[in-house]
Amino acid sequence: MVEKLVVIGGGAAGMSASSRARKLKPNMEITVFEATKMVSHAPCGIPYFVEGLFDDENLFMTYTPQFFREKRKIDVRINTKVTEVDFDSRIVYAESKDGKIKAEYDYLVISTGSLPKKLPVEDGDDRVFYAHHPAHAVELREKLWSLNTIAIIGGGILGVEMAEALSSRGKKVILIHRGEYLLNRMIDQELGNIVTQRVAKDVEVKLGEKVEQIKNGGRVIITDKGKYEVDGTVIAIGVVPNVELVKDKIKLGETGAIKVDEHMRTNYREVYSAGDNTESINIITKKPYWVPFATVANKMGFVAGSNIGGHEMTFPGVVNTQITKYKEFYIARVGLQEEEAKKYGFKPFSATISGKTRARYYPGAKDIHVKIIADENTKRILGAQIVGEEEVLGRIDMMAAAIMKGFTIEDTFFIEMGYLPAISRVWDPVIVAIRQLMKDE
Amino acid sequence: MVEKLVVIGGGAAGMSASSRARKLKPNMEITVFEATKMVSHAPCGIPYFVEGLFDDENLFMTYTPQFFREKRKIDVRINTKVTEVDFDSRIVYAESKDGKIKAEYDYLVISTGSLPKKLPVEDGDDRVFYAHHPAHAVELREKLWSLNTIAIIGGGILGVEMAEALSSRGKKVILIHRGEYLLNRMIDQELGNIVTQRVAKDVEVKLGEKVEQIKNGGRVIITDKGKYEVDGTVIAIGVVPNVELVKDKIKLGETGAIKVDEHMRTNYREVYSAGDNTESINIITKKPYWVPFATVANKMGFVAGSNIGGHEMTFPGVVNTQITKYKEFYIARVGLQEEEAKKYGFKPFSATISGKTRARYYPGAKDIHVKIIADENTKRILGAQIVGEEEVLGRIDMMAAAIMKGFTIEDTFFIEMGYLPAISRVWDPVIVAIRQLMKDE
Repeated sequence: MVEKLVVIGGGAAGMSASSRARKLKPNMEITVFEATKMVSHAPCGIPYFVEGLFDDENLFMTYTPQFFREKRKIDVRINTKVTEVDFDSRIVYAESKDGKIKAEYDYLVISTGSLPKKLPVEDGDDRVFYAHHPAHAVELREKLWSLNTIAIIGGGILGVEMAEALSSRGKKVILIHRGEYLLNRMIDQELGNIVTQRVAKDVEVKLGEKVEQIKNGGRVIITDKGKYEVDGTVIAIGVVPNVELVKDKIKLGETGAIKVDEHMRTNYREVYSAGDNTESINIITKKPYWVPFATVANKMGFVAGSNIGGHEMTFPGVVNTQITKYKEFYIARVGLQEEEAKKYGFKPFSATISGKTRARYYPGAKDIHVKIIADENTKRILGAQIVGEEEVLGRIDMMAAAIMKGFTIEDTFFIEMGYLPAISRVWDPVIVAIRQLMKDE
Repeated sequence: MVEKLVVIGGGAAGMSASSRARKLKPNMEITVFEATKMVSHAPCGIPYFVEGLFDDENLFMTYTPQFFREKRKIDVRINTKVTEVDFDSRIVYAESKDGKIKAEYDYLVISTGSLPKKLPVEDGDDRVFYAHHPAHAVELREKLWSLNTIAIIGGGILGVEMAEALSSRGKKVILIHRGEYLLNRMIDQELGNIVTQRVAKDVEVKLGEKVEQIKNGGRVIITDKGKYEVDGTVIAIGVVPNVELVKDKIKLGETGAIKVDEHMRTNYREVYSAGDNTESINIITKKPYWVPFATVANKMGFVAGSNIGGHEMTFPGVVNTQITKYKEFYIARVGLQEEEAKKYGFKPFSATISGKTRARYYPGAKDIHVKIIADENTKRILGAQIVGEEEVLGRIDMMAAAIMKGFTIEDTFFIEMGYLPAISRVWDPVIVAIRQLMKDE
C-alpha cells in the first residue's frame, strides 16, 4: 500500500518537509493543504515589497504550486483550509471553494506557521494593517501607499523594517515602541542606542510608550504619553505560534508552540511539527525556546521530511540568529542577550567595541560595533551582537557556529578569520572584542 | 634583576609579541631590532598603494616606532640589522649607521618574516620588481607608474592583486603563470577558471607557461612558449621563510621554517619564533604546515608574548584561511584543496554550486560560487572555497571555525546562519553545497 503524507501549511517548513520526503520516498503520496494562494512564500520580503524594491508578487514564492505539482509530484492544494484533524483515525478535514475534503494520512506534518499578535481597534479597522502574509502584500501596499502619515506600533525587527520601507517611500512615520530603545528584544542597549539614533533621523521615534487605545479604525492612537492622529496604523508587535487548529489535541510546550522531540515528532508518533508553530530547544540553555524564522523553519522541515522518508535525522536546537537592516546599517545578533543570560543562571560578562571595517589605508572604511558576551564560569561564548555597515552577516554566522559548538573565548580568539584590507582588519573587530574578554590582558 | 626581551623583526608577529609581553610584564626591558624604517607594517597593502588607493606610506604602519617607544615603553630600533645571535651566551649582535650593538636577552623572539623567491636576471636588474616590503613601496610605485607594459610572473595571490592594481592604473599587463589556471595553489579548478576568465578580460593571461630567462634587466622574458618584450617585470612567485640569520643554529621544520612547539618555543627554551619565519601545524592533518599570513603572524606573536609574559597559552595550529579580490570578485578558501586532501590520505568528495547572494525578489543579487570538500570516511569538512561578489569573507570565516573544530557535514548544515533578503538567501549557498554532500539526498 502506498504511504500517505499530509502537510498542513505550505510555507517554508511544510514545503521543505514535503520536498525532502519526496526525495527519499519517490512513491509516497504527498498532499499539502495551504489556506492562502501562495506556497513556499517569503514573509520576510513584505517590507521590501512595500518599499517598492520589487513589484511582482509571484517573487514571494520560491517555487510555485505548479512547480511542486509537476516537478516534485506533490499535490499542493492552495486556498484550502484545514478545519479539523482526527488524530486517532488519522484523518484531515479541509475545505475549499470546491467543497469539503477528507484526507487520510500515515504521516502528518503540522506547519501552520505563526500569526501576528493583534490589538483591539475601535470604530472598525479599515486603517489598521498587519504586514504578515505575502498573499495580502499587494493590497497592503496599495493601501499604505495611499496614506501620508503612518503610525507603526512596535519597534522590533518588523517595525524597524516597515519604518525603513515607509520612510523611504516618503511617508511621515511615527514609530511607537514600548521598550527603552528599538530592537530591545534583539540587541542590548549599547548597540540598540546606535540603531535608535539612526532611525530617529528619518522617523519620529517614541520610546517607552505604551499604546492604550486605537480608535477611529486606526486613525487615532492614544498612548500613556500622548495622542496621535494619523492616516493609518501598522501593528508589528510580534507573532504567536498558529496552533489554534490542534491546541486541544497536541501537546504544547511552555512557549505556547507545539512540543516536539529532536526528530520533530509530536506526542503522536506519526505526527510531526515544523516551522514557526513549533517549539525548539535553545542549544546554550538546553531549555525550550521559540524561534519563528525562515531558516530554522526550513531546517525543521528538512529534518521532519528526512525522518518521514526513513532517513533518521535530529534537529540540534537553535541559537536564535537574527539579522535585519536599517538603511546603511546591518544589525545582527546570535545567542543570548546579556540580561537573558542572567535569567538563565549564567554569569555573563561582555565587551563592546567600535571599530572600522577596512584596513587603515583602504578607502571607504565603515563603522562597526561589536558586543560579545561570555560566561564567567565556563568562559564559553553566550552571545554576539553586531551593528555595522558591511560584512555583518558573516561575522554573526561565524559566531553562530562557535556558539552552537560551545567555543570558549580562547577558541574564538584563534578562529583563523580571513584578512583582506578591502573588507576587514588584520585584528578583526570580533577578535578585538574577544581580546577584551581575556581578562588578564 | 630586570628581565630582558629582545625581538628580531618589528613586523606583525614581533610587535604583537612585544606588546603582549609588555602588558603582562610592565617592568620587562623590551628591545625590538627592525632592519627597515617601518614597524608593525602591512605588506598586504602594497598592491593598493600601487593602485593609488592611498598615498601616505605611513599608513602602512599600524603604529609608529614612536608610539611603541612612548606608549608601550618598547625600545624600537629601526634601520638596525641583526647580524648574529649567540644562543649559548644569549646575546644578539646588531648594527645600524650609528655603529654596532650588543644586546643580552633572557627571552628572544625571532620574527624575521619572509622573503620573496627570486629569479635570476641577466644584464642588471633595474627593471625587475618585487612587491614585498612596504618600506620600498614609494620607490616601487614611482617606477611602475613610469612604465607602460608590465609583465607579472606568478599567478598567485600577489600576482593577481598586482594585476588588478596595474591594470586599474591603465597599464598593459602580461600575467605569466606556470599553473593551468590562476590561484591554483589557493582554489580548485572549478572556481579558478571563473577567476581566470575574469582576470583575462583586463590582462593578457598566459597559462601553463614556464619562465626560462629574464634578460635585459627585466625588459625581455623568455618562456617555454614565447618571448615578451616589456618595460618591466614584477616577480611574484611566492615567499620563503627568512631564516638565514639562524638556520644553522635553530632547528628548522620540514617546511623550511623554524620549528616550534605549541607554545611557540624553538629548541632553545627561552627562544621563541613567530610569524612568517615560523612553521605551524595544520589542524586538519596534524602535519607541519607553513602559512605566511598577517593574522596568523599576529596570533603567533600574541601567544609567544603571553608565554614570555608568564601567562601560558598554546597556539592551536592553522587551517590556512586565505582571501583576495580581483575587481568585483572576492576569492577565498580555507582548509585543504581537494588534491591536497588526497595527498594527506583523506578520501575527499566535494560539491560545487553556483548561486545568488540575495533573495530572488531583492534587487542587485550577485553571483556566488561555493565548493565544499569533505572526507568520505569521517564526514568531516576538509575545505571550503568561495568566489563571489559579496559576503564571501564571513562565509569563509564561518567555515574556518567549523573546520578548526572538526564539524561534520551535518553539523555544518545545521549552523543557524542569519537570513536577510538584502544580502543572503534563505537556503544559503554554503548550505546548498552542504546539502549536495548529504549523499542519500
